[in-house]
Amino acid sequence: MKLGRLNHIGIATHSIADSIKHYRKVMGAADISEPFDMEEQGVKVCFVNTPTESGMNGTQIELIEPLDGSSPINNFLEDHPLGGQHHVCFEVEDIVEARVWFEEQGKRILGPTRIGAHGTPIFFVHPKDMMGNLTEIMETPKEGSDWSN
Amino acid sequence: MKLGRLNHIGIATHSIADSIKHYRKVMGAADISEPFDMEEQGVKVCFVNTPTESGMNGTQIELIEPLDGSSPINNFLEDHPLGGQHHVCFEVEDIVEARVWFEEQGKRILGPTRIGAHGTPIFFVHPKDMMGNLTEIMETPKEGSDWSN
Repeated sequence: MKLGRLNHIGIATHSIADSIKHYRKVMGAADISEPFDMEEQGVKVCFVNTPTESGMNGTQIELIEPLDGSSPINNFLEDHPLGGQHHVCFEVEDIVEARVWFEEQGKRILGPTRIGAHGTPIFFVHPKDMMGNLTEIMETPKEGSDWSN
Repeated sequence: MKLGRLNHIGIATHSIADSIKHYRKVMGAADISEPFDMEEQGVKVCFVNTPTESGMNGTQIELIEPLDGSSPINNFLEDHPLGGQHHVCFEVEDIVEARVWFEEQGKRILGPTRIGAHGTPIFFVHPKDMMGNLTEIMETPKEGSDWSN
């Protein structure tokens, strides 16, 4: 496998509304997406876009807030009551090949490959097998993708 | 203030050597800097470069390993024995203005402005004032910088 783009870092928060205020007022972010619910993942999600030399296409901050008491990020927020860095997400060209790659190395993959917040297939790899970092692997968005597994 | 580039995310590890193996063998990283000691900060540092559409100029992974038993990251590693995401670092155009900006908002700044791993001035803002995220603020590297405070 070849290291792909660092698409985003996931930051857990009790309140996306409060985090948006923080990124706007304290950090000066001007380009923040509308929050939306990802019911299957149990989270509300929103992206803070960051600049590069060529536009607002840098590694994003993905804000994630629990949708309810059964959200998978509730445990993290119990351990980190102020919120904090929850995961990293790297892009790959082919999600099927990437899944095989991690499986062949004995890395524990958490659940099925599914559609992530950017509309492309993703899976998560266990932090205990990734030097302590919960790691999302995400297929790079392509126009006309016909992924349907 | 205007949100700057997400320069790097800091990832703490007990062993940069092991982390380099992980990023090379598991994640497919090909562009990793030589580790070096930052004695004033009490850490050994190394950068994993990540791609963008235009080169290996994406947000970096900054690997940090304690230099000794008094390193400021030892507490983090006690709480996160496998290592993990330790801080985020955003660039600003002017470090002096940025420091005033955060101070005026009552954000606790940790220690003096000092020279960071990229050779430009940096400071850290307390995670309790930053939605749980230890945040490094770093002046964007410029050729011919004459910062000397």
